[in-house]
Amino acid sequence: MELYFSPMSCSLATRAALYEANAHATFTYVDSQTKRTEHGDDFLKLNPLGLVPTLRLDDGSLLTENASILQHVAARYPAAALAPSDARGVTRLQEWLSFIGTELHKALFAPLFDAAAPEAARSYALEKGSTRLDHLASRLQGREFLLDRFSVADAYLTTVLNWTRVTPIDLKRWPSVQAYVDRVRARPAYARALAEELELYRAELARRKSA
Amino acid sequence: MELYFSPMSCSLATRAALYEANAHATFTYVDSQTKRTEHGDDFLKLNPLGLVPTLRLDDGSLLTENASILQHVAARYPAAALAPSDARGVTRLQEWLSFIGTELHKALFAPLFDAAAPEAARSYALEKGSTRLDHLASRLQGREFLLDRFSVADAYLTTVLNWTRVTPIDLKRWPSVQAYVDRVRARPAYARALAEELELYRAELARRKSA
Repeated sequence: MELYFSPMSCSLATRAALYEANAHATFTYVDSQTKRTEHGDDFLKLNPLGLVPTLRLDDGSLLTENASILQHVAARYPAAALAPSDARGVTRLQEWLSFIGTELHKALFAPLFDAAAPEAARSYALEKGSTRLDHLASRLQGREFLLDRFSVADAYLTTVLNWTRVTPIDLKRWPSVQAYVDRVRARPAYARALAEELELYRAELARRKSA
Repeated sequence: MELYFSPMSCSLATRAALYEANAHATFTYVDSQTKRTEHGDDFLKLNPLGLVPTLRLDDGSLLTENASILQHVAARYPAAALAPSDARGVTRLQEWLSFIGTELHKALFAPLFDAAAPEAARSYALEKGSTRLDHLASRLQGREFLLDRFSVADAYLTTVLNWTRVTPIDLKRWPSVQAYVDRVRARPAYARALAEELELYRAELARRKSA
């Protein structure tokens, strides 16, 4: 497998899942501004929408969208048990992956990170987003993970919640969520993925600053 | 099964899927403004986020999020073949469900329908959204449906694209998409679901106008 990623973006969830599974994979950097890969290729020719994560599968085809990529990684490495195997559990995994992708990633964080978004769109996203964090806090009260054990949904959720650091959102308002994020970040695979991408992210920022 | 719905919202996709499957289900109207059900119940007590579709499963529990609800309906009624059964097909179904939910529903349409969204947020969503429609047009060129045959992803996509009628988006700019929407709307189950919800939607608008 080959993962096209941009550091600290939502593709970090896939990297963490691959590390959790001890998977053999290569990681190809995509500059999110120029849409060039580290090999100088035009990423838009691979994925016209220019979105990461994009995963090159064993058969050479490309897969996009976090929810499908994470479920594919879980299915490809069943020994790592990164997804429930019973029908009820699969349904609940899909429910959380969709909630994270739509209500948090797209509705809350996308307007906050979008330089073209007007201030009013940001404050509205923050206001609505706090009800989503209330919902998460209630789910995580007394629970270790979103489902009965660690799953790819936790890799995705923690990756999205990492972004609060550069927003006005203070997770301390939701102690069960803060404790959860700390718990997932303490997992060796997640910690390694996060540390590596943080370093790449800082190098990217330094490169842009000096350009 | 009991589907909590609001007419012409994204819950229409679930209704259409249930009709495609000849499923036995009840449909409970939720007023999207007051969050009251047709029985006078407070919907926020059932689903604190107040979102439809919400599906009451056979075991009495509630399921939220379109992507998971649609996959659950497909799995519950396998004879209707509303989802691929092979692993590769399942992955592609999940990819499209996620694309529709994140890139179209949340990123393109949500700002257009949000009365609190400023004008700049809307024009930005329209501009970015047109690249998503280009992507769809290219996928649907020479294809009948998103996957090899009709699936719940088509029910969801068509439901979302129905909303273009009340936006500045003119699907005629993307002929393969327009032809696709016409094709799905011509299916008896989808046509029935759409006609019923349009009538309920018009009645809702008339009630609000006279209130």
